[in-house]
Amino acid sequence: MQHFLKETDFTLSQAAEVFTLAHALKQGRGRHTPPTLKGQTWAMIFSKSSTRTRVSFDVGIHELGGHPIFLNKNDIQLGRGESIYDTANVLSRFVHGLIVRTYEQSEIEQLAELGSVPVINALTDYLHPCQIFTDAFTMAERWADGTNFLESLKGKKLAYFGDTANNIANSWILGAAMFGMELVLAGPEGYEPGEDIQKTLADSGFAPTWSFTKDPEEAAKDADVLYTDTWVSMGQEEESVDRIRVMKPYSVTSDLMKRGKSDALFMHDLPAYKDMEAQADVLYGPQSVIFDEAENRLHTQKAIMSILAEAKRR
Amino acid sequence: MQHFLKETDFTLSQAAEVFTLAHALKQGRGRHTPPTLKGQTWAMIFSKSSTRTRVSFDVGIHELGGHPIFLNKNDIQLGRGESIYDTANVLSRFVHGLIVRTYEQSEIEQLAELGSVPVINALTDYLHPCQIFTDAFTMAERWADGTNFLESLKGKKLAYFGDTANNIANSWILGAAMFGMELVLAGPEGYEPGEDIQKTLADSGFAPTWSFTKDPEEAAKDADVLYTDTWVSMGQEEESVDRIRVMKPYSVTSDLMKRGKSDALFMHDLPAYKDMEAQADVLYGPQSVIFDEAENRLHTQKAIMSILAEAKRR
Amino acid sequence: MQHFLKETDFTLSQAAEVFTLAHALKQGRGRHTPPTLKGQTWAMIFSKSSTRTRVSFDVGIHELGGHPIFLNKNDIQLGRGESIYDTANVLSRFVHGLIVRTYEQSEIEQLAELGSVPVINALTDYLHPCQIFTDAFTMAERWADGTNFLESLKGKKLAYFGDTANNIANSWILGAAMFGMELVLAGPEGYEPGEDIQKTLADSGFAPTWSFTKDPEEAAKDADVLYTDTWVSMGQEEESVDRIRVMKPYSVTSDLMKRGKSDALFMHDLPAYKDMEAQADVLYGPQSVIFDEAENRLHTQKAIMSILAEAKRR
Repeated sequence: MQHFLKETDFTLSQAAEVFTLAHALKQGRGRHTPPTLKGQTWAMIFSKSSTRTRVSFDVGIHELGGHPIFLNKNDIQLGRGESIYDTANVLSRFVHGLIVRTYEQSEIEQLAELGSVPVINALTDYLHPCQIFTDAFTMAERWADGTNFLESLKGKKLAYFGDTANNIANSWILGAAMFGMELVLAGPEGYEPGEDIQKTLADSGFAPTWSFTKDPEEAAKDADVLYTDTWVSMGQEEESVDRIRVMKPYSVTSDLMKRGKSDALFMHDLPAYKDMEAQADVLYGPQSVIFDEAENRLHTQKAIMSILAEAKRR
Repeated sequence: MQHFLKETDFTLSQAAEVFTLAHALKQGRGRHTPPTLKGQTWAMIFSKSSTRTRVSFDVGIHELGGHPIFLNKNDIQLGRGESIYDTANVLSRFVHGLIVRTYEQSEIEQLAELGSVPVINALTDYLHPCQIFTDAFTMAERWADGTNFLESLKGKKLAYFGDTANNIANSWILGAAMFGMELVLAGPEGYEPGEDIQKTLADSGFAPTWSFTKDPEEAAKDADVLYTDTWVSMGQEEESVDRIRVMKPYSVTSDLMKRGKSDALFMHDLPAYKDMEAQADVLYGPQSVIFDEAENRLHTQKAIMSILAEAKRR
Repeated sequence: MQHFLKETDFTLSQAAEVFTLAHALKQGRGRHTPPTLKGQTWAMIFSKSSTRTRVSFDVGIHELGGHPIFLNKNDIQLGRGESIYDTANVLSRFVHGLIVRTYEQSEIEQLAELGSVPVINALTDYLHPCQIFTDAFTMAERWADGTNFLESLKGKKLAYFGDTANNIANSWILGAAMFGMELVLAGPEGYEPGEDIQKTLADSGFAPTWSFTKDPEEAAKDADVLYTDTWVSMGQEEESVDRIRVMKPYSVTSDLMKRGKSDALFMHDLPAYKDMEAQADVLYGPQSVIFDEAENRLHTQKAIMSILAEAKRR
């Protein structure tokens, strides 16, 4: 049973297929969509609220001919004493796939191991692979000639600013290695990538392509993409004053953008806090592709679900 | 992009089309429904709970061939720091229409202005246009010969009792002017219609047809419809004792009903509190059409959504 | 209008039809399902959270061609002052059936009486008939030759351990009488079946087939099924220490299993608390059919809904 719990659960050839299929699904939206989930119900189990993840999966499952069920974690008994073993076994009898947004990466790993349907990581505290595949597709849409999506990423420089120890930074460490991109993480001391993600990368067989610097200008230099993420995620509100203070130097300004290539993209996975992690004129400026990035969640995730459903049928 | 944020966002000719289409959809329900939302997802974003609004839109979207997504405001990040600008832009990429139930009229106006999909006002503190179009259709069903729905409203007298400064009263001020009906609002001193709704009416180009009186019997005299609404809406529980005291004289009794025309209708948009805003023998009496009113939310809203979807295609 | 509020709302011949249809739906799942709810919306109104009930009904309605709407009781106004009469009348205009999970049996009885669509009891504090029909089907699947499901239950011995005064015990008192099974309830003093369920059984016209004992070993002797349920349901957390103390002797152990027939089944309607009402080696042992039981909720409920929808059409 194949799952998508981390970027490297897909082979490079499957990643290429995700990009090609996402492109085709985007072009054909509203006219012809292959009903790859026809007759299937996919459950979304969410411990955290979300606009983009919730809506993009719900719409995507529907557009592929499937039936989405949204389950707030309070709606089910997983969080209230029922074991993951029982939950995984029971849900596998009812539904054809699980989209899980939770805290612990180990929780989705257990659901995947104990159940008998594909599981997709829709965000954990550790990784956010759907976002990274979406971001990569958003870049490749611009850099490829319509066919060589995966190849177009190779050798490109991605500069990431701010909280370099969070799930997006972790996931880009895997994604950049997989796609052959150079990743420079720029953030304050104490936010260097942890040993766990370095171990996960080593286990994947891909060679590291990342480096860490405290100097934002060095990171931005000649970058193809300047990327940032919210500094204060849900659940971190208490430590927010401290986080904002140390991350302030890594806010993406129009000056910092100028250090990148002249056609560099600005990316942010949203929700964005204006004039915090990025200045308003960058967020909504001509180099920003943040709303395309959001939209592409839909197309990329439809591709990922289609590939998993097809893999299960075989 | 056309929206339905207030009654007068539709032209008179579109209002006539709503009634004709609602009638046809009601007749054909369960047998043949034009799939005007086929391939589309419409999101319902609700800040307040609701039985009728929630269920009627959900069923209606489905019966038109569309896919409904219900989003409690807590489910998304709009209420927690994400800007309306970002929310409107992101949702416009995923869904084909928005049904919004919230507090501030300005919030739905901004969503409509900043997004690129039709927005329907499913209740704000200021207006409730879906209810007023539904009420008018419920009257016209009885007064028209099956074709001249809009014309059948002209010159009719609607007497409204109780809280004459709430969203239903405001919306009837617009609706009565639009449909050429006489509206007499009967309520306690201090509940006269505000300047804001008078300004909205003036801006619409329709001449006012409303008057205000403290005398319920004067209002009821020869009325074609006696209409009331709950005195204490969600969020007003604290001031409820005072509200009930001053509104008591405006409770619709069977004596008051007798002041109206002999075939006058009793209407209430629900939820109703028995023996408060209306006596039980009126609520469930022979002149009451409250459950037809509730049912017609479904048919009227299906018509409104169909017209907006068609307008967008053009 | 036929409902399914308690086991005996169905005739024996309808019970036989449930088993036959559930079997056919299980065999045909994913290939051919009769679209018995096509064009219909069924609302699930839940006062309590649930994994199995929520997901199995949602998937089941969808697979029968219908549209499910899930309404947390907070989503609607039933719990906040709106009368059952108004709610039943309004919902009957919008939807084609109601699945209700609530506390009071009288509440669903009123919804059924006042509305005009079929109502299914998806759990009350008093009864859980969908579970009992599912359990009986799960037994009959193993004991029948593919046709005589109902007959295969006759004369079998079901031993139930633990809280013999809860909704599962009550429902089995009705179900065992209806299916001609011997039911031995083994639990601590003070948990004998109440007068209310004895009255309900007497009213049904079926002769009692149950007995109560404090001796778990006597109950288990030569049993065809050993059945238990969680000791502490939602809402009973306060009294949990006392309940666990008195019920401890009724925990289903592998020693107790050996008292039953050699091919006896172990059943539990879940959620299960390991090493409380049953030991882990029993819960996940070779005689356990707990995950088949869970899965069969889907097939059995699809059969029940289909029969009610068909009965309404006639």
